[in-house]
Amino acid sequence: MSEFEVIRRLLRDAPALRDDVIIGPGDDAAVLALPANHELVLTTDTLICGRHFPVDTKPADIGWKSLAVNLSDLAAMAADPAWITIALSLPQAQEEWLAEFVTGLFPLLQSSGAALVGGDLTHGDLSITVQAAGLVPSGQALRGDSAQVGDKVCVTGDLGDAALGLNIWLGKQPERDLETKQPENLTYVLNRLTRPQPRCKAGIALRGRANAGVDISDGLAADLGHMLKASNVGARLYADSLPSSEAFDALCEPEQRLQRQLNGGDDYELCVTVPDSELAALRSAIDCKFTVIGEVVDQPGLQLLDANQQPMEFPQGGYDHFPS
Amino acid sequence: MSEFEVIRRLLRDAPALRDDVIIGPGDDAAVLALPANHELVLTTDTLICGRHFPVDTKPADIGWKSLAVNLSDLAAMAADPAWITIALSLPQAQEEWLAEFVTGLFPLLQSSGAALVGGDLTHGDLSITVQAAGLVPSGQALRGDSAQVGDKVCVTGDLGDAALGLNIWLGKQPERDLETKQPENLTYVLNRLTRPQPRCKAGIALRGRANAGVDISDGLAADLGHMLKASNVGARLYADSLPSSEAFDALCEPEQRLQRQLNGGDDYELCVTVPDSELAALRSAIDCKFTVIGEVVDQPGLQLLDANQQPMEFPQGGYDHFPS
Repeated sequence: MSEFEVIRRLLRDAPALRDDVIIGPGDDAAVLALPANHELVLTTDTLICGRHFPVDTKPADIGWKSLAVNLSDLAAMAADPAWITIALSLPQAQEEWLAEFVTGLFPLLQSSGAALVGGDLTHGDLSITVQAAGLVPSGQALRGDSAQVGDKVCVTGDLGDAALGLNIWLGKQPERDLETKQPENLTYVLNRLTRPQPRCKAGIALRGRANAGVDISDGLAADLGHMLKASNVGARLYADSLPSSEAFDALCEPEQRLQRQLNGGDDYELCVTVPDSELAALRSAIDCKFTVIGEVVDQPGLQLLDANQQPMEFPQGGYDHFPS
Repeated sequence: MSEFEVIRRLLRDAPALRDDVIIGPGDDAAVLALPANHELVLTTDTLICGRHFPVDTKPADIGWKSLAVNLSDLAAMAADPAWITIALSLPQAQEEWLAEFVTGLFPLLQSSGAALVGGDLTHGDLSITVQAAGLVPSGQALRGDSAQVGDKVCVTGDLGDAALGLNIWLGKQPERDLETKQPENLTYVLNRLTRPQPRCKAGIALRGRANAGVDISDGLAADLGHMLKASNVGARLYADSLPSSEAFDALCEPEQRLQRQLNGGDDYELCVTVPDSELAALRSAIDCKFTVIGEVVDQPGLQLLDANQQPMEFPQGGYDHFPS
């Protein structure tokens, strides 16, 4: 089967959900109907084998994640996912590989409500570039440069699971007594690495309520740091308020906790800054864990406070997606 | 300089042309204002080193071509180029390479009127994936599946230059007496390979006048063949009407002419079908060579006729972008 035929079949089999797709895959480009009073949100991210995921990652997990990381960027702008294109580079036109790949890609596509409207397949080292287009009511995109002094810093979900999962996967760092722990904890953190859940619904709930937001792909400290710098403000974080999963608590070496939660990447949670007055409404509108972890201050930089409100040293080291 | 810093600088230095860019590069995604009564046109194409261009291609030419092939898809839909994202995979974060790359990318970006609104840089084998978003007045996209019996088949520009240029470049096939030919002919066909001119203005002139259209990236026979099949029609082509450049005439072995013009890819011209009644208006509206090369008929398939209207055998072989 030719590359042309393989990609044609992949596109044909994708779930067809949207009636705004005027011309779908098969022509030179897709043509999409645009709603009134909306803005377009565009993003692209590449996953490269051996760098953004371990070489022994299952094709289905690669399919899920390549879409999830892009949907996470849309979520961080408070956009509704709309249309996806995918550029695949494969060592060979492997039909079996693709058949598994789509078993991860299509369910997330379906639940996101987006349509796959175009694709390209080439021979080369394994890499996947997804482009995601979303829609947001005009003026309601969540910016990454508008945090306000006095805002509470909040995150969705838990922190550190994916970095812990990656380290366990790679066997690079022995975590405590893996054998004695319940296997569901292991499954849980590995699943958080391979199947991140983009916070699309939370992003939409944040419209008009949060002042600023980003997604956490490179670690909380790095991504929050960018947001604060772009906003010309700083923040205090309360170390003991950083949310963690039960599995993380069970598996993570205590001395590694802060490092994983602050510098561990691949969590794909949202970090947002919210005025006090909006917190109560937000808590009931958001469909996932939502935790206040600090507050925005005038002084630039990021300060970490312990349980006694005393400054703590920051754990060193950024996150290199996949330390190959 | 980190990958983050390198891509940030590239995006920052891009020509800023459009006031519909509400949030540009630097946030999780770009936010774009949408005009009323338009549809969105989305496409993506990857160029891989050693497959879509020879490994000794200049970075500036790669920059030009990676955008040009995507603009060509927009042109084939009669869309105005609007917003571009680019996902680059480089063996290293080579600042020099990127500095040359943008000397090819930015001028075409500027002349196209599109804005570069997002990007991603990863380590890996050299490949470039561009996503292009364009706009077309609602209902005026040029489809690839609506050729009508009786339409004239037309092409913009000339055919075969790029395939001839590639063969000369690779030294795979000696063309006649290269030394004795004027060097500007050689320069011309190589330039047609490395710097294809996407037919954006022609595409816009075709709105409401052509019944169907595609761009020629895989060769006239293959791409026209897809259009005819999707339209449930066929076509007769007049072999002696296929347009060629003076350089092509000077350099191409006579027995290779038809093969290069019909099966040679990388020309990035438009092939369209046009009702007789629109031909005169189109000729004056289009800013480039525009040639009638055949007509659409009821009988499926593609038939080639000689100067005496007698059927000819089709030269065999499709186009494998870069026969590595």
